[in-house]
Amino acid sequence: MDLYEDERLDYIVENELSIIQSPNVFSFSLDAILLAHFAWVPITRGKTADLCSGNGIIPLLLSRKSKVMIDGLEIQQRLYDMGQRSVALNDLHDQITLYNGDLKDLPTEMKRESYDAVTCNPPYFKSKRNEQRNLNEHLTIARHEVLCTLDDVIQACSSLVKQGGKVSLVHRPERLLDIMTMMRKYRIEPKRMQLVYPKANKEANVLLIEGIKDGKPDLKVLPPFVVYEDNGTYTSEMKALYNEL
Amino acid sequence: MDLYEDERLDYIVENELSIIQSPNVFSFSLDAILLAHFAWVPITRGKTADLCSGNGIIPLLLSRKSKVMIDGLEIQQRLYDMGQRSVALNDLHDQITLYNGDLKDLPTEMKRESYDAVTCNPPYFKSKRNEQRNLNEHLTIARHEVLCTLDDVIQACSSLVKQGGKVSLVHRPERLLDIMTMMRKYRIEPKRMQLVYPKANKEANVLLIEGIKDGKPDLKVLPPFVVYEDNGTYTSEMKALYNEL
Repeated sequence: MDLYEDERLDYIVENELSIIQSPNVFSFSLDAILLAHFAWVPITRGKTADLCSGNGIIPLLLSRKSKVMIDGLEIQQRLYDMGQRSVALNDLHDQITLYNGDLKDLPTEMKRESYDAVTCNPPYFKSKRNEQRNLNEHLTIARHEVLCTLDDVIQACSSLVKQGGKVSLVHRPERLLDIMTMMRKYRIEPKRMQLVYPKANKEANVLLIEGIKDGKPDLKVLPPFVVYEDNGTYTSEMKALYNEL
Repeated sequence: MDLYEDERLDYIVENELSIIQSPNVFSFSLDAILLAHFAWVPITRGKTADLCSGNGIIPLLLSRKSKVMIDGLEIQQRLYDMGQRSVALNDLHDQITLYNGDLKDLPTEMKRESYDAVTCNPPYFKSKRNEQRNLNEHLTIARHEVLCTLDDVIQACSSLVKQGGKVSLVHRPERLLDIMTMMRKYRIEPKRMQLVYPKANKEANVLLIEGIKDGKPDLKVLPPFVVYEDNGTYTSEMKALYNEL
């Protein structure tokens, strides 16, 4: 496997699952792991899509808990290419298909209303004027709503998912109202939400939310997910999450 | 002080603050204590309103942390009357004024856009067909949206609060999206939210939310509030809340 100069090979699960990353372009974050853990996906029948796939971290993680086909979509050629090589490296071509394309103009291979579950870890930040943005274009696109807005993201998720299927997102708690409002706008009724707190006495910094297409209103808020103990070590739930990978 | 047959006198704070209650009519709940603790209220200048005041529990609790005038509004004569006697009993007539009236037709004494803070512990449940409702009319009105809907409640809060003032509500997490949507509809931008979990590994069962009239979007999710330890004793934060009363 060829690695570019700034790339490195990281293990997600020791000796079992590896991924090509580059701190200059994109490295997956805890958020992706939390989403892959949180999201409902079909296990043996049906299929799953992942949007804003980056280097393919979520499809790779989902392959650990599901046997169904997983399609990923990433707009940046450079990240798509990293994802393709990671899929090859893990010999997951039979299960994971990555596409290089724009969620505002979904590839025809990704059929509308055909997926049982759709996951997405979208850019978090509203697009700023040029001078304030991250100077690295790859990171800017991954983090800011430059090439797609939250509205675009949720519209795309909704167009791919079946009626009764599930859409799961990870985002920032500050955007909760916007996210829920747009979910409902595109017929994804919020059903399950979990807030992630860095420590038990800190404000939440990650929002996990799942909705059902044309579901009826009834939101559950799952137990709080706390990452670190006060002393800085991982909590038992965080250790359990890593052990499940 | 005269008590009716089914009433009893309960201490909220031993030897300091007492309240008249009746399990047949209305007893305050932990939710009211959580809201009084969570809500921002002016301490020395300005004024506060409380809607759906019931037997006056929230105005009584707020008098412990604030010196400003507090106006309460309750639609049920029987509960209003209990509240009046509790205010007298605690010698709080100089600070607390209770009104017997309907939030859909606010008393003229409660001036529009004049309050720095408005609190409300509204009925939680959508109104059901008659036969399914609680057979006790007083409890039905307090718990179900019979005499006012969530839309009415938030509209009334918004009409009372000043621009830049704060509205705090306690409700059920299932209604989160409805609440936030209606807050925004009536110019109360959600700014601070806290979820209350009965135990650390249980789903949230209480939602505390505060918004600012004409505030700009930026929601903070406060640390999780957990009521009980796994062994059934109060958590240290719950003990601290009681100690602060």
